[in-house]
Amino acid sequence: MEKLVNPPINTWDNLVIRPTQNVEDIEETVNEIFTEVSHKGDAALKKYTELFDGVEINSFEVSQDEIDEAFQVVSQELKKAIQLAKSNIETFHAAQKTEKVEVNTREGVLCWQQKKAIQKVGLYIPGGSAPLFSTILMLAVPARIAGCEEIVLCTPPNKEGKVNPAILYTAQLCGVTKILKVGGIQAIAGLTFGTESIPKVYKIFGPGNQFVTVAKQLATKFGVAIDMPAGPSELLVFADESSNPEFVAADLLSQAEHGPDSQVILVSTDITTVEAVEEALKKQLEKLPRKEIASLAIEHAKLISFTNEEKALAFINAYGPEHFIVVAEKEEIFVEGIINAGSVFIGSYTPESAGDYASGTNHTLPTNGYAKQYSGVNLDSFLKSMTFQKITKKGIQNIGNAIELMAEAEGLFAHKNAVTLRLKSLENE
Amino acid sequence: MEKLVNPPINTWDNLVIRPTQNVEDIEETVNEIFTEVSHKGDAALKKYTELFDGVEINSFEVSQDEIDEAFQVVSQELKKAIQLAKSNIETFHAAQKTEKVEVNTREGVLCWQQKKAIQKVGLYIPGGSAPLFSTILMLAVPARIAGCEEIVLCTPPNKEGKVNPAILYTAQLCGVTKILKVGGIQAIAGLTFGTESIPKVYKIFGPGNQFVTVAKQLATKFGVAIDMPAGPSELLVFADESSNPEFVAADLLSQAEHGPDSQVILVSTDITTVEAVEEALKKQLEKLPRKEIASLAIEHAKLISFTNEEKALAFINAYGPEHFIVVAEKEEIFVEGIINAGSVFIGSYTPESAGDYASGTNHTLPTNGYAKQYSGVNLDSFLKSMTFQKITKKGIQNIGNAIELMAEAEGLFAHKNAVTLRLKSLENE
Repeated sequence: MEKLVNPPINTWDNLVIRPTQNVEDIEETVNEIFTEVSHKGDAALKKYTELFDGVEINSFEVSQDEIDEAFQVVSQELKKAIQLAKSNIETFHAAQKTEKVEVNTREGVLCWQQKKAIQKVGLYIPGGSAPLFSTILMLAVPARIAGCEEIVLCTPPNKEGKVNPAILYTAQLCGVTKILKVGGIQAIAGLTFGTESIPKVYKIFGPGNQFVTVAKQLATKFGVAIDMPAGPSELLVFADESSNPEFVAADLLSQAEHGPDSQVILVSTDITTVEAVEEALKKQLEKLPRKEIASLAIEHAKLISFTNEEKALAFINAYGPEHFIVVAEKEEIFVEGIINAGSVFIGSYTPESAGDYASGTNHTLPTNGYAKQYSGVNLDSFLKSMTFQKITKKGIQNIGNAIELMAEAEGLFAHKNAVTLRLKSLENE
Repeated sequence: MEKLVNPPINTWDNLVIRPTQNVEDIEETVNEIFTEVSHKGDAALKKYTELFDGVEINSFEVSQDEIDEAFQVVSQELKKAIQLAKSNIETFHAAQKTEKVEVNTREGVLCWQQKKAIQKVGLYIPGGSAPLFSTILMLAVPARIAGCEEIVLCTPPNKEGKVNPAILYTAQLCGVTKILKVGGIQAIAGLTFGTESIPKVYKIFGPGNQFVTVAKQLATKFGVAIDMPAGPSELLVFADESSNPEFVAADLLSQAEHGPDSQVILVSTDITTVEAVEEALKKQLEKLPRKEIASLAIEHAKLISFTNEEKALAFINAYGPEHFIVVAEKEEIFVEGIINAGSVFIGSYTPESAGDYASGTNHTLPTNGYAKQYSGVNLDSFLKSMTFQKITKKGIQNIGNAIELMAEAEGLFAHKNAVTLRLKSLENE
């Protein structure tokens, strides 16, 4: 842990920097696999699944039998928990629906904006040690509310060629239209180009390791949109003397257990609080099953004190954390003043875990300072907005001359002529 | 021109394909210039401006004197036209503002979504033959409404080191905070890394040639967001016997004059209309100042007839045009059924030029079929949405157990513990 007191503003650029990953060596591999999947389809998926997942898969699509079995295996209490989370996520994302925006900008010039669902979306759910079924809730629920027609989920099989039952249960519950046992670069390539088994989609969502991240970036070159660029997960907590250091430490550790590269930062205006959190961190860390991972992340954690809330806020906005917990006497300074953060958790009883699972907000959020320019996943991530206009004779007479002048000034005479012809036709009306 | 009658659906994949550009040779140049600008800042800008624009620039920022001069030079009537367009664009984009979305997903679990402006944005305006001041209206007006603090505009200087006065006038009128005389790859690199003259921004908007397009794509690797990937401009017109072939031809030509690679498509249910439009096209083409460019685009235009509106609509949605004009007896079939298009123009008196300049809708739109997954530029393009949550003691008691179960099932015990600690502390309350 690095403890800093009142770091001067000219050191902030260094403090807010995230660890950079050298992806150049990965890029070559990703390019190769993309080329092969685009040419050979399922045969390439099969090859790379054997290579990376160590299992031979002959049918990538998860069968109804496998889904039925998952419904048997998942415990009743976990099912209820998932249903409660789903219901909250539905409530919050359904509330984000917007009406058609319609306005007459001039008499006879009617313009409107309308959102339509992206027809085909792909959801990537990593496998590995933690089966992230919660991410399915975060992606499939808004996709359904938006009205996406095809919701294709890819997730890697385990060594037995199976997918975790909680993943299958959640995917079925949330209306995923196709579940495929394929992961990694080859899954992203399949969603990009389409294969015999994987439908080509228009936008790919979901987290993943650095291979998946580079693959998603490459997919954009082939016209596929992605939710956002990804990086290691982050939590910044502002806590002052009104906070409970045990709670704060538990929150910081919940971030730290994600991986050795997780970013964990405590900002405070109170040195006693910093010390108390540090103590609690050490104590709680000992009891964690994922202690080894968490302690690596905690090693490069930062504990930073500032003399007042305003300076702390300025630093937090410069950092742009993915998750921002604020437990402060003067919480309104932060709630009103935060500009750059993915999701904000306010008060002692609002742990990050709540938003990770069940409060209703989305947990797919911008990392790496991208909160400065990217939204977290929300209902609009599954929609695109289109504009419409309908102009009457009177309308084109109202704005036609302005169009002619501007088109001429830009040297675009055919643009001008399209208006002139119409205005002329109306001269004798 | 290629005329097709009832092309079978298995030929559509080929029909909707856009010309691909081989950008690999460009990529190397773009990479080189990015590296140099990131290391040498203004010195690199200077070098490449001399190389590509053929002029030595010592001060990249446009001075107040230059802006004042532009205000003198632009004609009163053009100023009025620009002001009318600005007012309509403001009206339409201001109407897109959304309120905070706030909902209690459970008792004691308050979640809300709020949008905040992206603080620093860069607008790229190409120079060259057509000074696209209209694009400044389309980008700077919503940026101001959104509340962006820094709006930086880059545009290449001409051989005399000057910028077109209409560009300067419009930029000043729309509240651009800094205007820089630098274009091409080096401008995008400057906006990505920041130099002595160019502020680093969080998101880059605006059209450009293939060099600028590749540069914008590369910028995303360095964490800068972009409006959307770009390709040659497109217009698809559906016109039946209720249309005026002269108007239709004029609209198709207004697209064709953009460049030899412009995509121009006519879809109809009426062969007589197709023939009449073809005649009018040939006639009108002769009179165009940009006849040479337009005729190259018209050469590879497609005129496609279908037996009914439903088939035509299915094809149009498969194509996903940037601009879609519909002049049809049964226009509602198209207006209600269109899913994939950037902007839709309805009826005989709604030329594309209206939306290009002055009706109020945005003209920065997805090309290349990207309307399937990307929105055109709109107010939200300059905002990012953040979520907030505040949970009471009662609230965490309502959802805490679900969180514990899910965290445990994902193997994330520190996530669980952050809730358990809180629930325990409440047991005796």
